[in-house]
Amino acid sequence: MSPNEFELIRRYFWGLGGGAVIRLGIGDDAALLDLPPGEVLVTSVDTLVEGVHYPEDTFPEDVGYRALAVAASDLAAMGASPLACTLALTLPAPDELWLQAFSEGLAQACADCRLPLAGGDTTRGPATVITVQVFGACPANAVLRRDGARPGDQVCVSGTVGDAAAALAILEERWHPGPEAAAALLERFHRPAARLALGEHLRGVATAAIDVSDGLLADLGHVAAASGVAIALASESLPLSPAVAAAGERGRAWALGGGDDYELAFTLPAGAVPPEGCTRIGEVCEGAGLSVDGEPADASGYRHF
Amino acid sequence: MSPNEFELIRRYFWGLGGGAVIRLGIGDDAALLDLPPGEVLVTSVDTLVEGVHYPEDTFPEDVGYRALAVAASDLAAMGASPLACTLALTLPAPDELWLQAFSEGLAQACADCRLPLAGGDTTRGPATVITVQVFGACPANAVLRRDGARPGDQVCVSGTVGDAAAALAILEERWHPGPEAAAALLERFHRPAARLALGEHLRGVATAAIDVSDGLLADLGHVAAASGVAIALASESLPLSPAVAAAGERGRAWALGGGDDYELAFTLPAGAVPPEGCTRIGEVCEGAGLSVDGEPADASGYRHF
Repeated sequence: MSPNEFELIRRYFWGLGGGAVIRLGIGDDAALLDLPPGEVLVTSVDTLVEGVHYPEDTFPEDVGYRALAVAASDLAAMGASPLACTLALTLPAPDELWLQAFSEGLAQACADCRLPLAGGDTTRGPATVITVQVFGACPANAVLRRDGARPGDQVCVSGTVGDAAAALAILEERWHPGPEAAAALLERFHRPAARLALGEHLRGVATAAIDVSDGLLADLGHVAAASGVAIALASESLPLSPAVAAAGERGRAWALGGGDDYELAFTLPAGAVPPEGCTRIGEVCEGAGLSVDGEPADASGYRHF
Repeated sequence: MSPNEFELIRRYFWGLGGGAVIRLGIGDDAALLDLPPGEVLVTSVDTLVEGVHYPEDTFPEDVGYRALAVAASDLAAMGASPLACTLALTLPAPDELWLQAFSEGLAQACADCRLPLAGGDTTRGPATVITVQVFGACPANAVLRRDGARPGDQVCVSGTVGDAAAALAILEERWHPGPEAAAALLERFHRPAARLALGEHLRGVATAAIDVSDGLLADLGHVAAASGVAIALASESLPLSPAVAAAGERGRAWALGGGDDYELAFTLPAGAVPPEGCTRIGEVCEGAGLSVDGEPADASGYRHF
């Protein structure tokens, strides 16, 4: 830590803390958080590397927003209520304009995700590397895990899938939809919505849950493997935004194989009604592996579109 | 996450988890930790960047050990009992030999610090960046903070100070002590001992505490500023290892200005006896700022030795 760092932290990040959960925030050796009595701590960490997880010309506001939202999505997938977050930020140089914009996007995500900033570390390094740790709480017996899916369960997903993969195709100039569709898809990529309220709602309702970060097939593959079941999807039931639907076979591949949508995929007992904004896309069966429209499907086959 | 990553995580890091505190570890969207009833969560994050926080030719075993010990030291400074840790690891390429050695050093530190690995994230990036988050617990009213020092308190430090700065001087070939002294000092740098047991012992005993990471003067400067007091040190009372003591004025500068020792500096009420292995080095006074042997001292003045 250089003296510079203290000043930068004060200027850009102290305003993002606060809230009843944070007993002691930025400024001591560690942060102190109060947990609701009788609940377990739920924690996850996610790293974004510039040029790997987002294009180098991404607006820093969007980088700040996305860094937190992506990590918060893991809390949603566990059914946890958000408590707070910490930030480990490695930068090539203390660029004040970048920090100002980054902290604004981060602040917006802190507010949207109900995750005030409780502390962090700022370091200098050869590349921009952003690691966000999120903290939530949940009654131990209500946590949504990957291993609870049972044959006969419905498979559901929130929102629409394939949007982030479509946005990547736009960013890499592999696809050129109309300007309005492009703007909406890019917003979905840069400002993903962590489905925290849905995750809390699914406590005691869903039998398993995961967030769609690696891709729908890949993530449901994790659920199937952890639960010791097979999952059968019906491609015509996949919820697609209009532009992705209009992209035909390519849109279907984005929906099944593209990651970064940060929707929740979950399993529900047969009789349950999917929550509003969620779509039934398949069912859990005896066996192992995934199928789409009755054909065996392999997550890796949809990785390169 | 690539499929490769799952395999690497399984191979090198799954063995480092376990323990009664981790209700759910590596392998789901988030980790679940049980906290002792009625205690607050104490958490801190530290990043090590290759070439910035350790020389590029450092043995990966030592990098793994140091990454965790440095973070654990912040728990010690708060008086927290260790619970678990998570690791966010960014690497230019999945180098198996490096990972094998790194995970061995990390495993040793996990055992020494009582911090089993509960989860993490592995990413590819242009540089090696290691971010460790540590979790501990403490009764809320027993936490050791920086802001509790009162005029009349004794100022104490554990172990010896200046060893890590002396080791850096050896590594950068600015100083050449005998081989035995050099080996001992380098071991202190690469394998710092987080003073967790001392931190727990100081609960309800020390009035303020901090770990010596930035340097004795810099860190005691934080305590003085947070507590609204002055601190007066006596240089002849500084606990020095024999080789640092033999380095004369340079050794004194290392002890006052060099960071990375990860000892605990703390304040005790006037009548209290310093714990075994700790040395009284000064006292807390009315006023502001630091002095050494009656002369005003500035942490920044000792930064470049």
